[in-house]
Amino acid sequence: MRKQILVINDDGITAKGIRSLVEAMHGLGDIHVVAPDSPQSGMGHAVTIGDILKIKKHDFPIEVASSHSTSGTPVDCVKLAIYKILDKKPDLLISGINHGSNSSINVIYSGTMSAAVEGAVESIPSIGFSLLDHDSDADFELSKKVARTIAVEVLEKGLPKGVCLNVNIPKVNEADFKGIKVCRQSAGYWKDDFEERTAPNKEIYFWLKGKFTNPDKGEDTDEHALSNGYASVVPTQFDLTAHHFISDLNTWKFNK
Amino acid sequence: MRKQILVINDDGITAKGIRSLVEAMHGLGDIHVVAPDSPQSGMGHAVTIGDILKIKKHDFPIEVASSHSTSGTPVDCVKLAIYKILDKKPDLLISGINHGSNSSINVIYSGTMSAAVEGAVESIPSIGFSLLDHDSDADFELSKKVARTIAVEVLEKGLPKGVCLNVNIPKVNEADFKGIKVCRQSAGYWKDDFEERTAPNKEIYFWLKGKFTNPDKGEDTDEHALSNGYASVVPTQFDLTAHHFISDLNTWKFNK
Repeated sequence: MRKQILVINDDGITAKGIRSLVEAMHGLGDIHVVAPDSPQSGMGHAVTIGDILKIKKHDFPIEVASSHSTSGTPVDCVKLAIYKILDKKPDLLISGINHGSNSSINVIYSGTMSAAVEGAVESIPSIGFSLLDHDSDADFELSKKVARTIAVEVLEKGLPKGVCLNVNIPKVNEADFKGIKVCRQSAGYWKDDFEERTAPNKEIYFWLKGKFTNPDKGEDTDEHALSNGYASVVPTQFDLTAHHFISDLNTWKFNK
Repeated sequence: MRKQILVINDDGITAKGIRSLVEAMHGLGDIHVVAPDSPQSGMGHAVTIGDILKIKKHDFPIEVASSHSTSGTPVDCVKLAIYKILDKKPDLLISGINHGSNSSINVIYSGTMSAAVEGAVESIPSIGFSLLDHDSDADFELSKKVARTIAVEVLEKGLPKGVCLNVNIPKVNEADFKGIKVCRQSAGYWKDDFEERTAPNKEIYFWLKGKFTNPDKGEDTDEHALSNGYASVVPTQFDLTAHHFISDLNTWKFNK
């Protein structure tokens, strides 16, 4: 049986990143594309409740087994793919290649990674890929090689229950690329700021302008790997329980 | 110095749940409300990138130190509150009280909990509260007592770096309420389905219709506590690294 590979993204079905990801999977199985009809960056794990969803057949520029765009978020795309379009679970779910980093804390804001996490919730081996380059015409050649290497391994070995992979690729020449490194999520965050502007009708409005900050100097982090020319692979889970704090919390006086 | 308490939600600033949460905090400090101007359920950790945000002063029905509605998501509200409206970090961030459960896997879809997680990212002691009742006129009296008890403890003791609390309250009479229990996140998920309909213009569209399923029978889970009349408290973190899988993953052949 040929492997069934579901391809999702958050930059929208016409982005160069998803086309590159499909190219990278050539010959590994039947490719099914289900992606948002417009960019959905920063959507995190948003899911459409209380509104309708639409699905359209899409003419993907490369030959694929099927291709659909949806009006929903990346997580909606996963649910629509499994429960409506394919009506079964694929052997592999891959998301991306995102135009821009999803390392460190970005994992929680990322539509690309939320699609991979949703795949893991559905017990599908799932990987999110991101290139550290926001350019809409970014060079994905190195990313494609990394994506294929990792996808081949996951297709062969699977992933443990509740775990997906967060893969980030540095913006470097292939000659300067050091290899693929397993890492933990760096404890960075966004120092946010808002730029205030005045509309023609005198109304005040704001644009978010964040600056990524990383006080975590650990050499086992994704940030450290990326800034040293490695692609980072962080095994990522959706059990958010802070297990290390449970015994402490049990000493608190909640029930007097 | 009086404690500064930031109150957020995802059901919108006029919901009964957020009014109840403000009531529950009476006398504990200065209350600042920053909440979405419309319901934002299911928004997960979405953040507004590439679009503008608006802030309006809001006349909250109970006396508070300040009250603003925003056009953004719950996570936007946290960022706007800290970096624009208050221009400082509060001593406590509380989110809710959500109309409906955020136990188990719901934590990743929940705008209520994403606001609390964002607070933790900002190193603010943060708690999300949810009542297992979707009714817009739900009875929040028991929830208010639980919220106050836990908020008082957190104001006194703080929370470890990178950890917030996910509190869910069962829909029971006070006489049947068993107390507050520290738990882990149950490994439940949504078995999804889509209802297909036809618009007047003949276009097909879909509504998401999920069914929550919990194969995790552990007696230390939030689901177990809630179904036995306890309020559940799950310490929740934003480090998504599946640390237990790192050593295995290091044996994979990523670099041949």
